[in-house]
Amino acid sequence: MATQGQVLTCKAAVAYEPNKPLVIEDVQVAPPQAGEVRIKILYTALCHTDAYTWSGKDPEGLFPCILGHEAAGIVESVGEGVKDVQPGDHVIPCYQAECRECKFCKSGKTNLCGKVRSATGVGVMMNDRKSRFSVNGKPIYHFMGTSTFSQYTVVHDVSVAKIDPKAPLDKVCLLGCGVPTGLGAVWNTAKVEPGSNVAIFGLGTVGLAVAEGAKTAGASRIIGIDIDSNKYETAKKFGVNEFVNPKEHNKPIQEVIVDLTDGGVDYSFECIGNVSVMRAALECCHKGWGTSVIVGVAASGQEIATRPFQLVTGRVWKGTAFGGFKSRTQVPWLVEKYMNKEIKVDEYITHNLTLGEINEAFHLLHGGSCLRCVLSCE
Amino acid sequence: MATQGQVLTCKAAVAYEPNKPLVIEDVQVAPPQAGEVRIKILYTALCHTDAYTWSGKDPEGLFPCILGHEAAGIVESVGEGVKDVQPGDHVIPCYQAECRECKFCKSGKTNLCGKVRSATGVGVMMNDRKSRFSVNGKPIYHFMGTSTFSQYTVVHDVSVAKIDPKAPLDKVCLLGCGVPTGLGAVWNTAKVEPGSNVAIFGLGTVGLAVAEGAKTAGASRIIGIDIDSNKYETAKKFGVNEFVNPKEHNKPIQEVIVDLTDGGVDYSFECIGNVSVMRAALECCHKGWGTSVIVGVAASGQEIATRPFQLVTGRVWKGTAFGGFKSRTQVPWLVEKYMNKEIKVDEYITHNLTLGEINEAFHLLHGGSCLRCVLSCE
Ligand SMILES: NC(=O)c1ccc[n+]([C@@H]2O[C@H](COP(=O)([O-])OP(=O)(O)OC[C@H]3O[C@@H](n4cnc5c(N)ncnc54)[C@H](O)[C@@H]3O)[C@@H](O)[C@H]2O)c1
Ligand SMILES: NC(=O)c1ccc[n+]([C@@H]2O[C@H](COP(=O)([O-])OP(=O)(O)OC[C@H]3O[C@@H](n4cnc5c(N)ncnc54)[C@H](O)[C@@H]3O)[C@@H](O)[C@H]2O)c1
Ligand SMILES: [Zn+2]
Ligand SMILES: [Zn+2]
Ligand SMILES: [Zn+2]
Ligand SMILES: [Zn+2]
Repeated sequence: MATQGQVLTCKAAVAYEPNKPLVIEDVQVAPPQAGEVRIKILYTALCHTDAYTWSGKDPEGLFPCILGHEAAGIVESVGEGVKDVQPGDHVIPCYQAECRECKFCKSGKTNLCGKVRSATGVGVMMNDRKSRFSVNGKPIYHFMGTSTFSQYTVVHDVSVAKIDPKAPLDKVCLLGCGVPTGLGAVWNTAKVEPGSNVAIFGLGTVGLAVAEGAKTAGASRIIGIDIDSNKYETAKKFGVNEFVNPKEHNKPIQEVIVDLTDGGVDYSFECIGNVSVMRAALECCHKGWGTSVIVGVAASGQEIATRPFQLVTGRVWKGTAFGGFKSRTQVPWLVEKYMNKEIKVDEYITHNLTLGEINEAFHLLHGGSCLRCVLSCE
Repeated sequence: MATQGQVLTCKAAVAYEPNKPLVIEDVQVAPPQAGEVRIKILYTALCHTDAYTWSGKDPEGLFPCILGHEAAGIVESVGEGVKDVQPGDHVIPCYQAECRECKFCKSGKTNLCGKVRSATGVGVMMNDRKSRFSVNGKPIYHFMGTSTFSQYTVVHDVSVAKIDPKAPLDKVCLLGCGVPTGLGAVWNTAKVEPGSNVAIFGLGTVGLAVAEGAKTAGASRIIGIDIDSNKYETAKKFGVNEFVNPKEHNKPIQEVIVDLTDGGVDYSFECIGNVSVMRAALECCHKGWGTSVIVGVAASGQEIATRPFQLVTGRVWKGTAFGGFKSRTQVPWLVEKYMNKEIKVDEYITHNLTLGEINEAFHLLHGGSCLRCVLSCE
């Protein structure tokens, strides 16, 4: 390819400062070094983690940076030693790496690979601890090891899932974050069994994916809880068969759910990022076995609390990151499931815009009617 | 038997008021009603739950009452419909009932039987919601459905474990609470695997039983943590092979343990009842899979807290009551294991006194050198 080994100039949305509109810039993208992959991003969606860092509330957020972590594209070139993908491969960048070699990967107990975290956590690449992005010679930080709000990005090879080239990239880009997170919270973290009662707090993309996961796992009662009653109509399509709006009750929501379910649910999921709701989600679990999974990401510094008696009497408190999925191994499997119509993806896409309209897309994300907005990057 | 069906008068230690010495009284013990069993208590040990309620800090504590829940004895008589035990059977009263019929028992997921809880929680028997104990016609409340600080007690039949008559009652009385709690926390709740690293906070009877459970489960590093360094010598005999005294470190204890174990332990156990230590126990667990089990009972109203990120990055927070053992089914099995020398019991007994010396026994319990004090009731 003509571009291989060269610095590329392309459009990217640069976040120069917290809370200021992103700027579509001509960005220079350096070629991939050893163990790196340069990807042409075709479609990227927006997720709340992008919005959170952009808002400035994330104390680890670094500016200027290129946000974005839910995307799909085609490998443009690879650095030395990259074996698992080659130019032309269709891929999904994975903010959760999978090296298959580190203590975490080898444990078989977690998907939280530690291989490149020390670099991705501070917006650089492992090799030289520098960024591959620059504008007029000034470096722009990477974000979550993915930086997909750009026509081209560079990621570590352990962060690239190679997928079926027949899969529509404008849809499967969603398998980079929210949808797997919800499905995996049910399948991998909670391991919901047939006949279970489930409570889902928050019916955004993640909560709806939890609902779908619970339905396919055979849960019988799937109770959706949201402060926006409009969410119920859509949620029904994903498996939610009962709905509670906390605003319509005077009692604490955990009591409402306990009363509704003769003692509490078997499994609950917090898909909002609100620490008081996390407590409610734990406390609405059935004594003896109820398990609550924290999926939402709370603002920095906030804490969860409860009485230890809640745990001594048998409730279990867990959390999940990327639904416990091993990214390089399982994202391609999720793509297959989508191709076989075993999981939904299209139904989460409520808006389609272009990379140039990204600021509008962020506005949409904060409105109640948007689940996922997919941006075309060409 | 001559005493069957009659009110019996015997000696019991009555707690008339919080924090006032127990009074050895002539107590009238009514005969067992339908589904009830009257037991001649031969040996009873003291546990911190007795001390907690006696101290007045337990808002659900009722006075006057007869405390005690770690004991062994012989069935004196049984009420109508009692099938599983008969006069002369050797038994251990179980504060955690097992009816095998309720939602909890049938779930197969928990030992927290709910059958008699509504009565035992308020110091009475299910049948008539009255006490079987009185002094000069004035009722004395039951405690935890066991009230073993008495020469005779009446319990529900679902709260009686029939054991091997060859077992020494002055030893196996300990299988009524602390020892099973620690062993079960490891075997049933945490399910520690061979090769695991384990941290145990608090090296009293419960912590030592956790150590023994961890050792038999094949744990490799068993780190004991106690503010009393004298505990290490004894703890070694139970399997503890490293010791940390938090007072000898300037860093928070969770950091000390994380540093010592290259990222944290696989399993931790809080065996003190201190909510700050509960947090430390969770936070010293390894990212990705570390599981922390709360065994200690905190004072009423106190709360545990942590950042949700601790759970989102893979730690699991659990608790245990009576180590998850199903009392009637598994206490006899634990007695067998003791008889086969597969678990220790004798080694926890540091003092032997009589029921008449119970106030001295409570003093001993608060001193550092006492694990369990067994009282002879005759
Ligand atoms: N753990 C992970 O790996 C992971 C991955 C992706 C996203 N997340 C997090 O999951 C959360 C949900 O993401 P999303 O994209 O579905 O968000 P979203 O904003 O689309 O959905 C949140 C929903 O919660 C509802 N809500 C808000 N406050 C509520 C309250 N007090 N009670 C009940 N409902 C309430 C809102 O009306 C909305 O429907 C976010 O915190 C996100 O950061 C976590
Ligand atoms: N969950 C259950 O079913 C159950 C059953 C029985 C007992 N318990 C509880 O288990 C706990 C332990 O019981 P026990 O009989 O072993 O008690 P214990 O008092 O004999 O042992 C507690 C140990 O903790 C140590 N300690 C105190 N504060 C400490 C600190 N800040 N850091 C480190 N070590 C500290 C003490 O020196 C002591 O060695 C109690 O809270 C008891 O109520 C729970
Ligand atoms: Zn995301
Ligand atoms: Zn790895
Ligand atoms: Zn006890
Ligand atoms: Zn029961």
